[in-house]
Amino acid sequence: MAHTISPLAPPTFPTLPTLRGVRLAAVASGIRYQDRVDLMVAELTAGTTVGGVLTKSLTASAPVDLCRANLKGGKARVLIVNAGNANAFTGQKGIATVAATVEAAVKTFGCKRNEVFISSTGTIGVPLPAEKIVDALPNARATLKEDTWTEAAKAIMTTDTFAKAATRTCSIDGIPVTINGFCKGSGMIAPDMATMLAYVFTDAALEPAAVQTLITAGAAKSFNCVTVDGDTSTSDTLLMFATGQAKHRFVGSAVDPRLTEFRAKLDDLLIDLAKQVARDGEGATKFIEIRLTGADNDTAARRIAMSIANSPLVKTAIAGEDANWGRIVMAVGKAGEKASRDRLAITIGGVQVARAGEAVPGYDEAPVTAHMKGREILIEVDVGISKGAATVWTCDLTHGYIDINGSYRN
Amino acid sequence: MAHTISPLAPPTFPTLPTLRGVRLAAVASGIRYQDRVDLMVAELTAGTTVGGVLTKSLTASAPVDLCRANLKGGKARVLIVNAGNANAFTGQKGIATVAATVEAAVKTFGCKRNEVFISSTGTIGVPLPAEKIVDALPNARATLKEDTWTEAAKAIMTTDTFAKAATRTCSIDGIPVTINGFCKGSGMIAPDMATMLAYVFTDAALEPAAVQTLITAGAAKSFNCVTVDGDTSTSDTLLMFATGQAKHRFVGSAVDPRLTEFRAKLDDLLIDLAKQVARDGEGATKFIEIRLTGADNDTAARRIAMSIANSPLVKTAIAGEDANWGRIVMAVGKAGEKASRDRLAITIGGVQVARAGEAVPGYDEAPVTAHMKGREILIEVDVGISKGAATVWTCDLTHGYIDINGSYRN
Repeated sequence: MAHTISPLAPPTFPTLPTLRGVRLAAVASGIRYQDRVDLMVAELTAGTTVGGVLTKSLTASAPVDLCRANLKGGKARVLIVNAGNANAFTGQKGIATVAATVEAAVKTFGCKRNEVFISSTGTIGVPLPAEKIVDALPNARATLKEDTWTEAAKAIMTTDTFAKAATRTCSIDGIPVTINGFCKGSGMIAPDMATMLAYVFTDAALEPAAVQTLITAGAAKSFNCVTVDGDTSTSDTLLMFATGQAKHRFVGSAVDPRLTEFRAKLDDLLIDLAKQVARDGEGATKFIEIRLTGADNDTAARRIAMSIANSPLVKTAIAGEDANWGRIVMAVGKAGEKASRDRLAITIGGVQVARAGEAVPGYDEAPVTAHMKGREILIEVDVGISKGAATVWTCDLTHGYIDINGSYRN
Repeated sequence: MAHTISPLAPPTFPTLPTLRGVRLAAVASGIRYQDRVDLMVAELTAGTTVGGVLTKSLTASAPVDLCRANLKGGKARVLIVNAGNANAFTGQKGIATVAATVEAAVKTFGCKRNEVFISSTGTIGVPLPAEKIVDALPNARATLKEDTWTEAAKAIMTTDTFAKAATRTCSIDGIPVTINGFCKGSGMIAPDMATMLAYVFTDAALEPAAVQTLITAGAAKSFNCVTVDGDTSTSDTLLMFATGQAKHRFVGSAVDPRLTEFRAKLDDLLIDLAKQVARDGEGATKFIEIRLTGADNDTAARRIAMSIANSPLVKTAIAGEDANWGRIVMAVGKAGEKASRDRLAITIGGVQVARAGEAVPGYDEAPVTAHMKGREILIEVDVGISKGAATVWTCDLTHGYIDINGSYRN
């Protein structure tokens, strides 16, 4: 399962500052992995509000069901995340494991049942023994610290090749506010592994409804614009916790002008994390940004951009460093959204290669070829209908993807 | 471009009988390939009716636009198909090439403009010189024969590894009727190649509306149930020609009870051809049949089955001979159609591995493992909602696919 670090990984892991109201622990529970931390626990101060976005999969895991139910309360005190077993498609056993974990958390942390959030990532269809987590909770509580961010990000990795985190600061009412986030995965990331998990923490003081609105809007521009293989996990989870320890006046609405800077920084952090997911795509050797303009509306733009980003033929061409824009034309055509064949324009690495529905006669191929040999590929497509726009991120499709996903589970 | 023959190819090419009212020629026009036939011309007797199904791509090629227009007339006298250049995304030049080809066909064969049908398959975005085809037409006409079926099927290949054809016989009103068909491709089949093309010929005497209804219904059960990579071509074309030379009484309606046997044989032939396409999927080493039951309706069943068939994670697992049914659960969940997580059942190679939303305790893994090592993989999934059902065909996703599609165009 050990993979070399993605060539697209950021040069360094960011240093996440302590964040008032959050303490974290990373311990080894022995669920699946040996000799590594695989259980992350975050204790959130009383009054912490929460919002979240969960997988739309109809075969969602038992922990996702719990998060969906507890998000209604809008309050959070404990987040528990294990790696190695997704507790997905595990029937009544999976539900029982979640229930036992909640009970243990209530007992260990003295919180309410609906303040406990759980995620699980790893193998689908294998029962997750509750006692592994339950037995590890007291030790986790005993080792909670304010500066365990790096270990927490590592504890939730499955076959990620690097830990993913980001931090931003801003102010609300002149009071400094911090936003920390970490995540794992990249679609269905590895041999029978599932899950993109992401957690964002802030000391801002926000009503639950505001947290929910902020994270929903942010997800639309970040994680929902990333794809590796188009395979939606049974466990995708993005949660945001606001501890309220920054002593500004409580903010009740996501559209409050006092949050203007916060919204921008949050979106920026989410996009940073989302791009890191694409950079750790299975077998990835190229990071690809697709900027789609000229669509009927923004939703149509995103669908067309995703059709390009998910096309195996586009992704293999890029892996082969081939500026094969005919395949981009194909992917636009199959997206099912309005596009003008005869006004379609395609730019690769800043050089327009097609416009008005045909190749640009005699365009300079040398800079395009040089661009394709790099690690960062930029594709701009205008479909000539209206003003809808979207940007999405993905990676190429390589032999590495086949190696990782075509190997036996054991 | 030379690939070894797919290990999933049928053992022999079928012998297609002559079919009254159809003469074919296969010639070398030099559009792209050297030392091989690349232009197929079929001359159809006066009175031949036609129906067809064309790509829904919004970036459809100029020849597809012509076919769409001429299908309205319901009559056909000439079919011209070239390999090596798709004449797609070629702007006004592409339209001019189609127009020049039509003019040449009218002159050479003495037919009407709206009785000419053209398909092109190959590179996207490269202008197709009309003179290559125009100059070859007289020689094609001079070499028309009734028994050139094999050469015709070969002339339209791009990187297909074997020629694909099928034949059936039946009777209408006690009169023997023949149905011949051939096709090429498998999605977007090769380095910057596009197109699935299929042509069916019969000597039955059918009204154009009946031909159209029969071919639309047949396509839904055959070609629309095949996928290799989910990438819809700009040129997909399925045409059916009925020469009327079998001397039964003309049939005006596709639902006429006299066509009961004909409909069954036609559907069977179309499914035969469609399966051959999946068997020649790029890099394919396993042929996969997915039988989906228990869906809300047949359309939902097809969507869920296609979600499984197009999942890179499912396809790579099968390439790795891994019965990784967790990925099937994932693909059901992401399909966006109703499915009951807690009633979902999965059977692989006849062995039920999951039911009632979890793994079947202690199922016998030995026969499942043996099945996965074979060439023909059968996956049955019941999603526990209602009676909707569909069967689709695909192939695995292997290093071969990456090799074929990640190589440079030249």
